[in-house]
Amino acid sequence: MKVPSDIEIAQSAELRPIVGIAEKLGIGEDDLELYGRYKAKISPAVWERVKNNPDGKLILVTAITPTPAGEGKTTTTVGLSQALAKLGQKVSFAIREPSLGPSFGVKGGAAGGGYSQVIPMEDINLHFTGDLHAITTAHNLIAAMIDNSLQQGNELNLDPRRIVWRRVMDLNERALRSIILGLGGKANGVPRESGFDITVASEIMAILCLSTDLMDLKERIRKIVIGYTYDGKAVTAGDIGAAGSAAVLLKDAVKPNLVQTLEGVPAFIHGGPFANIAHGCNSLQATRLGLKLSDYFVTEAGFGADLGAEKFLDIKCRLGGLTPSAVVIVATVRALKMHGGRKKTELAQEDLAALEKGMTNLEKHIENIASFGLPAVVAINRFPTDTEAELALVEEKCSRLGASVALSEVWEKGGDGGLDLGRKVMEACERRSSFRFLYEASLSPKEKIGKIAREIYGAAGVTYTDQAEKDLAQIHELGKDGLLVCMAKTQYSLSDDPALLGRPEGFTVTVREVRLSAGAGFLVAITGSVMTMPGLPKKPAALSIDIDEKGRITGLF
Amino acid sequence: MKVPSDIEIAQSAELRPIVGIAEKLGIGEDDLELYGRYKAKISPAVWERVKNNPDGKLILVTAITPTPAGEGKTTTTVGLSQALAKLGQKVSFAIREPSLGPSFGVKGGAAGGGYSQVIPMEDINLHFTGDLHAITTAHNLIAAMIDNSLQQGNELNLDPRRIVWRRVMDLNERALRSIILGLGGKANGVPRESGFDITVASEIMAILCLSTDLMDLKERIRKIVIGYTYDGKAVTAGDIGAAGSAAVLLKDAVKPNLVQTLEGVPAFIHGGPFANIAHGCNSLQATRLGLKLSDYFVTEAGFGADLGAEKFLDIKCRLGGLTPSAVVIVATVRALKMHGGRKKTELAQEDLAALEKGMTNLEKHIENIASFGLPAVVAINRFPTDTEAELALVEEKCSRLGASVALSEVWEKGGDGGLDLGRKVMEACERRSSFRFLYEASLSPKEKIGKIAREIYGAAGVTYTDQAEKDLAQIHELGKDGLLVCMAKTQYSLSDDPALLGRPEGFTVTVREVRLSAGAGFLVAITGSVMTMPGLPKKPAALSIDIDEKGRITGLF
Repeated sequence: MKVPSDIEIAQSAELRPIVGIAEKLGIGEDDLELYGRYKAKISPAVWERVKNNPDGKLILVTAITPTPAGEGKTTTTVGLSQALAKLGQKVSFAIREPSLGPSFGVKGGAAGGGYSQVIPMEDINLHFTGDLHAITTAHNLIAAMIDNSLQQGNELNLDPRRIVWRRVMDLNERALRSIILGLGGKANGVPRESGFDITVASEIMAILCLSTDLMDLKERIRKIVIGYTYDGKAVTAGDIGAAGSAAVLLKDAVKPNLVQTLEGVPAFIHGGPFANIAHGCNSLQATRLGLKLSDYFVTEAGFGADLGAEKFLDIKCRLGGLTPSAVVIVATVRALKMHGGRKKTELAQEDLAALEKGMTNLEKHIENIASFGLPAVVAINRFPTDTEAELALVEEKCSRLGASVALSEVWEKGGDGGLDLGRKVMEACERRSSFRFLYEASLSPKEKIGKIAREIYGAAGVTYTDQAEKDLAQIHELGKDGLLVCMAKTQYSLSDDPALLGRPEGFTVTVREVRLSAGAGFLVAITGSVMTMPGLPKKPAALSIDIDEKGRITGLF
Repeated sequence: MKVPSDIEIAQSAELRPIVGIAEKLGIGEDDLELYGRYKAKISPAVWERVKNNPDGKLILVTAITPTPAGEGKTTTTVGLSQALAKLGQKVSFAIREPSLGPSFGVKGGAAGGGYSQVIPMEDINLHFTGDLHAITTAHNLIAAMIDNSLQQGNELNLDPRRIVWRRVMDLNERALRSIILGLGGKANGVPRESGFDITVASEIMAILCLSTDLMDLKERIRKIVIGYTYDGKAVTAGDIGAAGSAAVLLKDAVKPNLVQTLEGVPAFIHGGPFANIAHGCNSLQATRLGLKLSDYFVTEAGFGADLGAEKFLDIKCRLGGLTPSAVVIVATVRALKMHGGRKKTELAQEDLAALEKGMTNLEKHIENIASFGLPAVVAINRFPTDTEAELALVEEKCSRLGASVALSEVWEKGGDGGLDLGRKVMEACERRSSFRFLYEASLSPKEKIGKIAREIYGAAGVTYTDQAEKDLAQIHELGKDGLLVCMAKTQYSLSDDPALLGRPEGFTVTVREVRLSAGAGFLVAITGSVMTMPGLPKKPAALSIDIDEKGRITGLF
């Protein structure tokens, strides 16, 4: 069957009024703030009404270590939810909000694919309900107030060389990574080095996604460390006097957004923090609200399970008091063969040896999920080139580790392509589980990092650069040892070396830098070069994006 | 009577659903894109349906040369509209969208005052429907594509020293006025000098406000000159390949926004270009739509009549094919006494001599409006300290020039305080008028500038700096002599010297620079220092803005 392109499917979809979608969750029109007919924000009054209800089953969708062959995590999240709806369950799910940068750069949107998409896809991938613009503005207001403080007499004794709060923009802006600002003489600020990150890398984004309500958000913003004084004391956004204004700018952005899938399943799309320097999941507010309103609630985490699932479980579940019922690990036979050493051009042939070798990657992720005390279901995104022997091998290996396996064809068939996956997920949710965190927050930062590196990545040990040691000493001095750890590591390997596929062993993880995200509530342990502002490629997507007199958009994805 | 603060009045106002407000103009729910319950964008389908209807009466609200005593132009626009509604007329009006910069800086919002305000005031003054964020993003996408073009081999042969397209941000950001970007080595762009303007100063904002529809907007963006090649040829946003993407980002921003006044009068708030380097009026699309839907349609223009009214009449009315019926000139006795030489602290005493001297400013503006062939009504915003003798003097002087005078108390009394003004405006609209432009577009730029300076400002002549001569030579070479002229002059004097109050004579206007806004369709003649990025004051408003657990905002205005 020839499946049309994502945008063709999305543009020909029939949208149901969002009021009807909300009704499926028991949300009335009075509790919706409409953004047009097909998007809405949900009033905080709904949470107040349902917060004492029992939670539905929480299902996390994660993946093997990503390869260029692709996995389809968001598509699986959407498709699984559609399948659960077809199986008669009351279901909703949450994914992250897309950033505008990639839309005009190289990558398409982040709204699923094929017949497992969220719609209205163009709106979601453009300004949506304005959340990212609100975050950009709140972040940059803090920055403007910092430079204004320097300009107006520097009463806080801020060292201009040690201001760590940069600015953000929701575009791919290579040329703004490193700038000198405040030039042009006395009237135009204090010259200093700084730069821009992409909005989704803002600590404000992480805070929005981890806060329980607007007051919690304001309190977390107050705690953000924006820089240091000449004598080394931390200066916060609260000291700068910006927390109230930032919260005002975010008053609507904190409210979860509701849209729908192609099959009319309620979809929360809210918040989208980076998966390296932040925790990479949609907002806690969307997740806990969806859990109260559904029997099954599906969500996903960025990158592979070593990063996404670990942070979801150790950071988001801990801060939000969440207990997952099952974890879905998305994989493809093609990607597993790449982990077994085959090139992208060689994946069409059956190769059981490469598959068996590559399966070690999936096996490690299954073991990791088990170590959190949770049942795993492996979702194999089926390709026409997958052979019966290959699929049988995957199934056998997974069963040996206690994970069930389901073939998924949600991209071509929507919910109908995920019925087997849906049933196996429901079964897994009934299994006895005993969710536990990997580490206690009371451990030292090095102990926490060590546990993640050894137990999740399979490392032999961890080394720290001089810079990282210095950072940890300062964090200790600031009394922040008790914060959680957010690992920033390449997504392309279980190790910190992107070239090591499969299940590397005996490697040492090098922590180069530890950043303090005191508002979000974690320490970011950086193990490689972290890109917080993407650039545009030689031929950016923006060159071919257009709109005609009927309002029809072309070239977007 | 003690009038509560603007925010107290606005917060205690009872909002009517916007669906009901739209009905007053014959717009059904199907033609609204709701943004919550009290804000909506209007579908382009409405224009298609009504475009052949006759226009209502177009009334421009402008003002004398502003003083620190304040005039109240937006308040008068709102109040006059409320008064016309009380007089039984089908009325709507349009004002500009506020920028976030001033809201967190020093000045309050731009939504009227007292009992003549538009609501929901907080939303309007915060993100509203996201138009300014869309403009910011479209503007900055063009900038990102320019720097990407430099980085990826510079196929267009752009001279990095002659890129005139800066970036924008909707905040007061002194420290970004002048920056060096592209630092950090080969992977991070081509180092060059640049900077940020505030979003309302973007040429995209001027274009959005002058375009007739999305296709016209795209075509105008295509024509923007973003820089020059090493051999001096102009390079456009079209050459950069950004016009289609920018139009996609602006697809919703081009649709007029509808809100309401405290008395439920339909209010368009759409677009807000700078009144110096741009033309300073709300969008043409809102104006021409409102004219089709109302018997009386009121709008305003930025700064005093020498700038705002001249640009409204010569630029917006010409490009939009509009014919005004009457012009309201807002003044206060206090401000006129300042024009007569009194200090702000001395305005409480009666002073007929100062008033008579200051009246020359108002007289010149009345004469100017007459020179466009239009009837003028002077609206005196009444203060308790105004004496009967002072008001009689104003009335007598104005009558002699053929202008009627009305006292306005719309701030304290809403529409009831503007009934006399409303009646006099309706009378003026019935007078015979013969609207004509000040200049023909076919004149040379110097002839156009000369006519404005001599006939509107009362200057003896115009001189040009070497830079301005160079700019004009380049504009001539580019074949752009036929564009309209947009004057950038101090608003605080009829001359280009802000210290000269009243009606200065014998002065020479100095044009220092002429900028090309080829997309907007005008040449900006700059006669002083133009600030396109404000800074925050020592104690910015942001320091005291806050929000509590009930969502109540304090400190905003």
